[in-house]
Amino acid sequence: MRAKFEDDSLTLHTDLYQINMAESYWADGIHNRKAIFELYFRKLPFGNGYAIFAGLERMLNYLKNFQFTESDLAYLQDELGYKEDFLSYLKDVRFTGSVYSMAEGELVFANEPIVRIEAPLVEAQLVETALLNIVNFQTLIATKASRIKQVVKDEVAMEFGTRRAQEMDAALWGARAAVIGGFESTSNVRAGKMFGIPVSGTHAHALVQAYKSDYEAFHSYAKRHRDCVFLVDTYNTLKSGVPTAIQVAKELGDKINFIGIRLDSGDIAFLSKEARKMLDEAGFPDAKIIVSNDLDEYTILNLKAQGARVDMWGIGTKLITAYDQPALGAVYKMVAIEDENGVMEDTIKISANAEKVTTPGLKHVYRIINKTNGKSEGDYIAMADENPQEEEHLKMFHPVHTFVSKFVTNFEAKNLHIEVIKDGQIVYENPSLMEMRQYAHENLNLLWDEYKRAMNPEEYPVDLSQKCWDNKMRNIQEVREMVQAIENR
Amino acid sequence: MRAKFEDDSLTLHTDLYQINMAESYWADGIHNRKAIFELYFRKLPFGNGYAIFAGLERMLNYLKNFQFTESDLAYLQDELGYKEDFLSYLKDVRFTGSVYSMAEGELVFANEPIVRIEAPLVEAQLVETALLNIVNFQTLIATKASRIKQVVKDEVAMEFGTRRAQEMDAALWGARAAVIGGFESTSNVRAGKMFGIPVSGTHAHALVQAYKSDYEAFHSYAKRHRDCVFLVDTYNTLKSGVPTAIQVAKELGDKINFIGIRLDSGDIAFLSKEARKMLDEAGFPDAKIIVSNDLDEYTILNLKAQGARVDMWGIGTKLITAYDQPALGAVYKMVAIEDENGVMEDTIKISANAEKVTTPGLKHVYRIINKTNGKSEGDYIAMADENPQEEEHLKMFHPVHTFVSKFVTNFEAKNLHIEVIKDGQIVYENPSLMEMRQYAHENLNLLWDEYKRAMNPEEYPVDLSQKCWDNKMRNIQEVREMVQAIENR
Repeated sequence: MRAKFEDDSLTLHTDLYQINMAESYWADGIHNRKAIFELYFRKLPFGNGYAIFAGLERMLNYLKNFQFTESDLAYLQDELGYKEDFLSYLKDVRFTGSVYSMAEGELVFANEPIVRIEAPLVEAQLVETALLNIVNFQTLIATKASRIKQVVKDEVAMEFGTRRAQEMDAALWGARAAVIGGFESTSNVRAGKMFGIPVSGTHAHALVQAYKSDYEAFHSYAKRHRDCVFLVDTYNTLKSGVPTAIQVAKELGDKINFIGIRLDSGDIAFLSKEARKMLDEAGFPDAKIIVSNDLDEYTILNLKAQGARVDMWGIGTKLITAYDQPALGAVYKMVAIEDENGVMEDTIKISANAEKVTTPGLKHVYRIINKTNGKSEGDYIAMADENPQEEEHLKMFHPVHTFVSKFVTNFEAKNLHIEVIKDGQIVYENPSLMEMRQYAHENLNLLWDEYKRAMNPEEYPVDLSQKCWDNKMRNIQEVREMVQAIENR
Repeated sequence: MRAKFEDDSLTLHTDLYQINMAESYWADGIHNRKAIFELYFRKLPFGNGYAIFAGLERMLNYLKNFQFTESDLAYLQDELGYKEDFLSYLKDVRFTGSVYSMAEGELVFANEPIVRIEAPLVEAQLVETALLNIVNFQTLIATKASRIKQVVKDEVAMEFGTRRAQEMDAALWGARAAVIGGFESTSNVRAGKMFGIPVSGTHAHALVQAYKSDYEAFHSYAKRHRDCVFLVDTYNTLKSGVPTAIQVAKELGDKINFIGIRLDSGDIAFLSKEARKMLDEAGFPDAKIIVSNDLDEYTILNLKAQGARVDMWGIGTKLITAYDQPALGAVYKMVAIEDENGVMEDTIKISANAEKVTTPGLKHVYRIINKTNGKSEGDYIAMADENPQEEEHLKMFHPVHTFVSKFVTNFEAKNLHIEVIKDGQIVYENPSLMEMRQYAHENLNLLWDEYKRAMNPEEYPVDLSQKCWDNKMRNIQEVREMVQAIENR
């Protein structure tokens, strides 16, 4: 409200250490060495058997507009004390690298690169934080939505979470991600405006309170809206709301399109069954029952098991915040960097936690699809100079329990990465949101049902090629020797 | 990227049903009736004994700029089919009401209005969703930050969560809320730029990987930065990272300000104790140990109990997503509306869940501060025409277990609401963020420690006045009679 600096760019939407590192790279003259970073997560969220990638469109927009504005530079100088020489360098920094990414709606698993950045070191470094911020959230919500949609099945799933979302961007981009994951609509009008998502919603309790009567409120609503869904739980669902909805629908007859009723509190299983009976008996067998009230995949499974009669599900809080696991832990790790002679060299990060050790080198990710049954055998990460399609018998082995292995024949090896930015230029046209949803939907057919179970799914294989595995072991050994040498000093 | 409509306003950042209700109110000519809505939550988050309100500044900005833009109206017409008469009405809608709000940093409890909106019905309705979206998130994070800061105590607490935040607004406004809750700094540079928050951060593993050696990387960093914190866990914390940090600090002596080291993985209790010894023995007793790695109030309590030697705590995921409870369930309920004669009438929403029944009427919230000891006796919600300060013996009783009661004397009754918007004009100047943090900090002194315990705190009283309670019962009775009449038809 009395900000000194205008919020006119997302370029400072980064961690301070990125800028400090940028300064060191620049001061040492290594800032333009080509570096390769991979963006991936280590563990699937919600105990789910797969994730759905989302976030590419926002990422491309961010990279295209990456540029320190005058106000960014003024802030860095006036408030943080960066020096003019470095700032005048920063002024001209743009994203000039190349980006390889999965498509939005792609199925993605733990420990495989979703996005690969090949760019001058300084650029790849500066964009890390924002890319993670975008991909972590949008992928999380697309995945949660897909999980819920698996349970909802052929009924309608609607995103209703804006008021509980973690601020505005989460509501907006979360609604979009929910559609990629399989949802039909959102209640957020701005998301409808921005992304062309169908919007849904009728009225709230306030309408009934304003008229102090279900009857008056429903009539008022029907005056101006042909499609009517009446919210029936303001005063008493079965004694007032449902009978009044039926009464008004009868009174108005063809003047309205009586779509149905919405329940927002109380026991949904009981109330939906009772309301169904009342609607059927009153001659409205096609009237829909729409429910909302803190729903998630577990509650929906239970309500269905109890015979709840629900046609449309409005999902809010639990979806839009990914309530049971509100963060995806995607990371962004350097896997190779150019040396002083212009040769690309592998890099590795070692950790006491084995699963945090990175896999070095320039790699490609393939989905190995069995041509006999059209199902996926797993994903296969190979060094860039390998071509698994050339193998007749592809050996796939578990990257931790290496004795777990199989040979695959008659397969298609599909490279999951698309070049989306080439030397700073976007070379990819985003499909429509509905195409992304369709893509995710079709991809799910590649998976055996065992991988799609809501609880305790089978683990989908994400394997390293022998060459990739050997290379990782060699790099680990080199670090060990380096640490040993320091210790022996 | 190929949006048909420009994202040039937050006015459509609302649920579709708000617009449908607005249309009904307008068509019926009741849209300008004055309505009173209250914003409050029903349950404190995280099992905490209090919450810290945040979000007012963003709310004021939103209300000030509330206006349907040309692109909003075009979208509503072209894509959603709203008719021209209604749209030409919407075009001129602005927020002309009055808003009474707690200050940011105020302690707030369940079932007391944080914000009260008195506005023409249609305006109060249209702004509901965005206000909830803002307050729910920012209050949640300020509260989580305060909880963590209670445990961190006199050490430094830094917000490090951007990459795991639920999209960009959450990172930005979450960093601000963290400061209100007691944090010292953020890593998010844009948040620093926008809100004047101190920013902190030095370097990441990538720097060490770029140089392929702790030694080279630390030296490179030190060339350009006087204040040095070295990240010591890229290859091996105790064998390489810490000894190398010490070596570089010794080599450079006064050329740098060796602030300390950062640990980002492994067992923080063990490593921090070992690192402390190594630093002390090397002659750096003032070097700080900074830790990060999935920390929250529980882990910090445990690490402290194990004697961890930590000077500064970097808190990411668990804070910025409010990981253990990622949504605050604040609601926005109509408590009164003008009738056709211009008289304000109470409204109520009944529910099968007793705690969801609203408390009708225009009310004020007071904090009852005992003048003898300076501690708060509880909060007291009274009808607007009551003045608790005039009572000599104030009776405070539990609004559910009404037999739990006490009499308070020698007290100050502090009205917690400030008029922040009067007839559409902002009449409030936001304090600085540091003043808000200070205000929250001082307010916590009003509470006995029992209410501030991280686990199983005492329940702070939020009581209704006798008149307020009687009024609620009368309204419930009226609804019962209305439902009975419908049933008897």
